[in-house]
Amino acid sequence: MFELGVCYRNITRADRAAADGLAALGSATVHEAMGRVGLLKPYMRPIYPGKQVSGTAITVLLQPGDNWMLHVAAEQIREGDIVVAAVTAECTDGYFGDLLATSFKARGARALIIDAGVRDVKTLQEMDFPVWSKAISAKGCIKATLGSVNIPIVCAGMLVHPGDVVVADDDGVAVVPAARAMETWKAAQKRESFEGEKRAKFAAGVLGLDMYNMRPGLEKAGFRYID
Amino acid sequence: MFELGVCYRNITRADRAAADGLAALGSATVHEAMGRVGLLKPYMRPIYPGKQVSGTAITVLLQPGDNWMLHVAAEQIREGDIVVAAVTAECTDGYFGDLLATSFKARGARALIIDAGVRDVKTLQEMDFPVWSKAISAKGCIKATLGSVNIPIVCAGMLVHPGDVVVADDDGVAVVPAARAMETWKAAQKRESFEGEKRAKFAAGVLGLDMYNMRPGLEKAGFRYID
Amino acid sequence: MFELGVCYRNITRADRAAADGLAALGSATVHEAMGRVGLLKPYMRPIYPGKQVSGTAITVLLQPGDNWMLHVAAEQIREGDIVVAAVTAECTDGYFGDLLATSFKARGARALIIDAGVRDVKTLQEMDFPVWSKAISAKGCIKATLGSVNIPIVCAGMLVHPGDVVVADDDGVAVVPAARAMETWKAAQKRESFEGEKRAKFAAGVLGLDMYNMRPGLEKAGFRYID
Amino acid sequence: MFELGVCYRNITRADRAAADGLAALGSATVHEAMGRVGLLKPYMRPIYPGKQVSGTAITVLLQPGDNWMLHVAAEQIREGDIVVAAVTAECTDGYFGDLLATSFKARGARALIIDAGVRDVKTLQEMDFPVWSKAISAKGCIKATLGSVNIPIVCAGMLVHPGDVVVADDDGVAVVPAARAMETWKAAQKRESFEGEKRAKFAAGVLGLDMYNMRPGLEKAGFRYID
Amino acid sequence: MFELGVCYRNITRADRAAADGLAALGSATVHEAMGRVGLLKPYMRPIYPGKQVSGTAITVLLQPGDNWMLHVAAEQIREGDIVVAAVTAECTDGYFGDLLATSFKARGARALIIDAGVRDVKTLQEMDFPVWSKAISAKGCIKATLGSVNIPIVCAGMLVHPGDVVVADDDGVAVVPAARAMETWKAAQKRESFEGEKRAKFAAGVLGLDMYNMRPGLEKAGFRYID
Amino acid sequence: MFELGVCYRNITRADRAAADGLAALGSATVHEAMGRVGLLKPYMRPIYPGKQVSGTAITVLLQPGDNWMLHVAAEQIREGDIVVAAVTAECTDGYFGDLLATSFKARGARALIIDAGVRDVKTLQEMDFPVWSKAISAKGCIKATLGSVNIPIVCAGMLVHPGDVVVADDDGVAVVPAARAMETWKAAQKRESFEGEKRAKFAAGVLGLDMYNMRPGLEKAGFRYID
Repeated sequence: MFELGVCYRNITRADRAAADGLAALGSATVHEAMGRVGLLKPYMRPIYPGKQVSGTAITVLLQPGDNWMLHVAAEQIREGDIVVAAVTAECTDGYFGDLLATSFKARGARALIIDAGVRDVKTLQEMDFPVWSKAISAKGCIKATLGSVNIPIVCAGMLVHPGDVVVADDDGVAVVPAARAMETWKAAQKRESFEGEKRAKFAAGVLGLDMYNMRPGLEKAGFRYID
Repeated sequence: MFELGVCYRNITRADRAAADGLAALGSATVHEAMGRVGLLKPYMRPIYPGKQVSGTAITVLLQPGDNWMLHVAAEQIREGDIVVAAVTAECTDGYFGDLLATSFKARGARALIIDAGVRDVKTLQEMDFPVWSKAISAKGCIKATLGSVNIPIVCAGMLVHPGDVVVADDDGVAVVPAARAMETWKAAQKRESFEGEKRAKFAAGVLGLDMYNMRPGLEKAGFRYID
Repeated sequence: MFELGVCYRNITRADRAAADGLAALGSATVHEAMGRVGLLKPYMRPIYPGKQVSGTAITVLLQPGDNWMLHVAAEQIREGDIVVAAVTAECTDGYFGDLLATSFKARGARALIIDAGVRDVKTLQEMDFPVWSKAISAKGCIKATLGSVNIPIVCAGMLVHPGDVVVADDDGVAVVPAARAMETWKAAQKRESFEGEKRAKFAAGVLGLDMYNMRPGLEKAGFRYID
Repeated sequence: MFELGVCYRNITRADRAAADGLAALGSATVHEAMGRVGLLKPYMRPIYPGKQVSGTAITVLLQPGDNWMLHVAAEQIREGDIVVAAVTAECTDGYFGDLLATSFKARGARALIIDAGVRDVKTLQEMDFPVWSKAISAKGCIKATLGSVNIPIVCAGMLVHPGDVVVADDDGVAVVPAARAMETWKAAQKRESFEGEKRAKFAAGVLGLDMYNMRPGLEKAGFRYID
Repeated sequence: MFELGVCYRNITRADRAAADGLAALGSATVHEAMGRVGLLKPYMRPIYPGKQVSGTAITVLLQPGDNWMLHVAAEQIREGDIVVAAVTAECTDGYFGDLLATSFKARGARALIIDAGVRDVKTLQEMDFPVWSKAISAKGCIKATLGSVNIPIVCAGMLVHPGDVVVADDDGVAVVPAARAMETWKAAQKRESFEGEKRAKFAAGVLGLDMYNMRPGLEKAGFRYID
Repeated sequence: MFELGVCYRNITRADRAAADGLAALGSATVHEAMGRVGLLKPYMRPIYPGKQVSGTAITVLLQPGDNWMLHVAAEQIREGDIVVAAVTAECTDGYFGDLLATSFKARGARALIIDAGVRDVKTLQEMDFPVWSKAISAKGCIKATLGSVNIPIVCAGMLVHPGDVVVADDDGVAVVPAARAMETWKAAQKRESFEGEKRAKFAAGVLGLDMYNMRPGLEKAGFRYID
C-alpha cells in the first residue's frame, strides 16, 4: 500500500497445481471454501462473458491516468500469471488496450484484473485475452509518475499480495492467499463434489426446506404459515 | 412491507390467460397500457439478453446477506409463477445460483426478479432460467434471519403484491396488479395492433411531425425554425 | 446550451470523407489524434456490442421525460448523420424505441447517441440500428415541453456542435469539431499506421520498456528494482 | 401506485396522540419498535441538521420535472400533516422552494419528505421548515402533467399510505402504518425507557459483552481469542 | 474543449454591474430568468453553507490528479472573478487548498467552482473563501501535464466561456453567458419583485391552486377529486 | 482479510507520541509526508464538521447488517485508540449509535472510522464523539455472524493493520503504518514548517508560477500564452 517507485522481482508464487486447478471451481465455490471471504467488489465485471481463469498474481499500483507501471509489470510476467492492478485514486481511464494485451499474452499472462478502465475491448475479445475491469473507456494514459510492481495492493476492496491465486469468471473475482492455495483447492473440490447430488434432488422437486432440514429452524425462529 | 416471519400460502393469482399473454407485449407496451406506470427502476437488468417472460408473482422479503426465505418461497411456487424478491436494506450479495434455480425451475417458476445480486450466471444461462437483478456477485448468503413470503413488497421502487403479473424483457420489468391484468392485456393488445401501420409509414419516410400532426402544437408553443 | 424552442435548419457538416473515414479508426485512436480530448464520459455504452460508426451530428436538447424534439430532429436528418441528444436534467427514461429508429433510419441516420435511456433494445439490434446511451428503460415519454435542435449541446460531459463528427464503437464515443475533422482523420491514420509494427514486436516478446526506451526515465525518476 | 390524475380528499389519519408523540422517540427507535422495518433509504437526508418531527402523511405522486401536484396537495394539508412525495422516475429537480414552503406552513404542514430535489434551502432553514430530500437543486419545475394526491406511493423504497405516521430526524425517515401507530408508540416508549440504564452502565465501563451476556454465544459460534 | 496547452490572456468579461448584481438574486431565480437553463449538475455542492456570490469566470481545464493549471489561472485573476475548473476525466482528488486559496484571494477571486475535489476545507471556511465542488479529498496533486486556461470548458455538464457570469449559492451554481448578463439581470430582478406579494398571499393561506388559477387546467386535464 | 471468528488481543501500537502528535498535522499533510499514499476513499465523511483527531487503530471486520464484533472490539480499546471497521460486503446500515459510543468513549476510544452507516448522529455530536462513515442510517443491526477483531482489514480501499496510526479531519482519513509513524510525524512537521512562509508570500500576491519557478517548465512543455 505504502511504497512507491519499486518493483519486487523475486516473488513467491502459490503452488502451481492449485493455482491452475482453482479455475475449474469458479469464484463462488472458491470464496465459499475460504469461509465466504476473498472476493473483489461486484462492480468488477468481465469485458466479455464466458471466460473462467485462474493464475498467480503480478500486482501493480498505478497513478491516475498513468499506465507506466503496466510496462514495468510486463517484464515480471511468467507463464500462468494474472496481472492485478489498482490505482491510487478512483479512475476510469483506459489503461490497457490491444498492444499491451499482445505484450502480456506473449509474456504468458492469462488475464488482467484492473480497478480502472480498459479499451480496445472488441480486439481484446478477438484475441481471447480476458479482462475484468471497473469501466470501459477510450481515454488513453500518460507515462509520467511512479507507482510500484509486486507490492501488496488493495484492488476493488480486496488485499492482494504478489503470488496469490486469482480466480475469475462471470460471477466475479476471488483472491486466495498463496499460503492457503492448496487447502482452498482441496476444500473447493470437496464442496464441488456434493453439488451433483444436490442438483439432482432439486431437479426432482425436492425442496431445500427438506433437503437442508430447515423446517425446525424456521419454527424455532417463530416463522408462521398463514392460510 | 411491515410483517416479518410469515408466509401466506393462499394467494390470489391474476387471470391465467392475461398473466401468460402479457409476455408477448413486453414491458414497454404494458406500462404504456397502464398509463405509463408500473415499472421497476431501470437498474434492474437481465443477466443475459433475449428473454421475454410473464407470470404471476410469488413475493419474498429478504434480509441483507441472507437467502433463507428463497427456500420458503420455493415451496409456494406453482407452474407459471415468477419469484420477485426485495431486501430490507441495499445489498448486492449473490442470493441465488444454479442449485436454487434448479429447484425453482422444477417447481414451475419462469424467472426470478431480485433487487440484489445473483451468481452462477453462466450456468443460469445454460439452464435457460432468466433472472433480472441489480447485481452479479459470487458472494454467498447465510440462512439466519426471518423475512417473509407472499406479503406486499417494494422491489426496485415498485409495489408488488403476491399474484400480480410480472412482465420482463430486455427493456426492464413491469408489474400489473392482479385486478387490472385483463384490462391491461386488452389495452396493450390494442396499442400493439396500431404499431405495424405506424412502422410502415415511418419506414416509408413519413415524419412523426406529420403522422402525429405535431406542427400546429410546436407553432403554438412558440417553436421557431431558423435558416 | 441556452436557447430553447429553436431548430437551426442550415448547419455546416464536417467534410464528408473525413466524417465517413473516421469510423475505421475508432474512438480511442481518434481522441489520441486530437491530443487525448473529445471523449464523452465512459458511462455512455452501446446497447449491443460490435458496432463501429461515424457520422455528422444532428444535436438535440431534450426536456426530462419528453421526447418531442426527437421528432423535430428526424426531419433534419440527412444521409450520414448521427443524432446526438442531451437532456436539461438527469433522466433515464426511454426516449427512443423501434418506431423512432425506423424513422431515423429511413431518413439516413446511422446511429443515436443519447445521454438518457432507450427501449425496444432487442428490436433495435434486430434492425441493426446502433445506440449509445446512459440507460435502458421501458419508461415512455410525453411530448409537451420545448427543447431545441441543432444548437450546441453538452452530451455526457462533452460539447457537441451540429455538424461535428461523431465516432462511436465498443470503447465509447468521441467528438471531432467539424473544422478539425480532416486534420484529425490524417493524424489518426498516421497513428494507426504505426500500430501493426508495434503489435508484431510485442507479439514477439519485445517489452514496452525497451521498445519505448523507458528504462532511463524510470531510473531518472528513482525507480528501484528489488531482488 | 397505479392511479394517475386523482386526489383522495377523505383519508384516515393515524391516532393523533401517537402521530404527535412518536417524534420524541426518533426514527431509529421507531423502526426498531416495529421489528426493524419501515425506513426510507438512507440517501434521504435533512437539508439542515437538528430537526426531529412526526406527523400524518399527505402523499403525492409527481411526474419528472413537474410540481403541479404539490399545489393540489397543499389544499389537503391539515394541522399536523407531513407531505410525502415520490416521482414516477428518478429526478433531482428542485420541486419545492420558499413560496410553497410558506403555503404548506400556513396550511399546517410540519415538514416535507421528497424523493427528489428542493431549492431555496437557506430560506427554508430561516423559516424553520424542515425537509428531507434526495437532492438539492436550483432547477425549477413545470406544471403540465397529472400525478396524484393521497394514493399509496413508494417513496425512497418504502410504501407510504395517506394517513400513515412519518417520523424524521437526523438519522433518516421512518413510516408507521396508521393502524400500527398506537402499538408502535407504546413499544417505542418501552424501548426508550431501558436506554437510560444501559447508557449509565456503558458510561461506567461495563462491556456490551457482559451486559448482553454475549460471551457464551461467541464461544458457541467458535469465536477464538488469540494472545 | 479541444485545445490543450494554452492560456488566453485577453478575455471579455460580462458587464460588471450585472456580474456583481446577480449574486443577490441567487442561482434559482437566475436560471429561471434565462428560461430554466444554465445550471451545473446538482452534485456540485458548497463546502460550507451560507455563501451567495457572483462574478466573472476564469476557466481552467485540468488533467486528472494534476493542478498545474490552477497556478497559471491565478495570474489571470482580476478583482471580481470566479475560477471555474473542469477535469479531462472524472477525478475526486484535492486540487485546491489553503495556499492556493490565499493566492486566489490575494489576486481578487471571489470563489472557486471545481468539478473535482478540494481540501483544507476547515481553513477555507475560516478564510471565508467559498468553494463549490464535487468532492472533498485530502489527496494532493502533481504538476506535470498541460491543460488550458480561459478556453470554453464543460463543468459539471454546463458549457462555460471565460468572462461568463457565475452565480453560486446553497442551491447550486448557474452560468450566464456574458452577452446575456444584462438582460438576465433585469429579468431576474423583475421575477424577484413579484415574490414578496406572492409570499404574503401564501402566508395568509391562499392556495397556489387559486393564486395561479390552476383549477380549470386540472379539470381540463381530467383530474378527479374523490371523496 | 481472510480470517473470520478471531480476536487478536496483543497488538503492537505505533509510537504513542507520534500517534498523538499526528493529529495536529491533518490528513492532507500526513499523506503528503508519506509520498501521497495512505488515504481512505473520499466517500468517508465526518458526521459533523470541525474535529481533527489521531490515534492507534483497533480493527474490526463486520458482516452485513451485523454489529456483534463492535462489542468484541470495545473490550480491546485502550486510551488513545480509534476503532476502524470494515464490512465483508457493501452495507449502509447503522452499526453504531449513542450506546456503543458511550461504551467506546468510556474505554478510551477517540473516534470511529466505519465503512458503513451510523445512527444517533445528533447525540454523537452532543457527546463530542467523532465518527467518519460512508452513510447515516437509522437501520439497526443484529448480532448473529462472526467477523474478526484486530486482523488486517481493508477499509474504504485502504489496508489498515491493528496498531497503525489513523489521522482524521474534515478532509478525510489517512492511515500511517505503525512502523512508519515516527518518520512520518517528523516529515509532516517539516512540511508544515514551510507552510507559513509560503502563505505569507501568496497573501502578498506572489504567484505560484514564480514561487515554484514554474515558467520554464511550462515553456519547455510547449505551453503558449495567447493575447
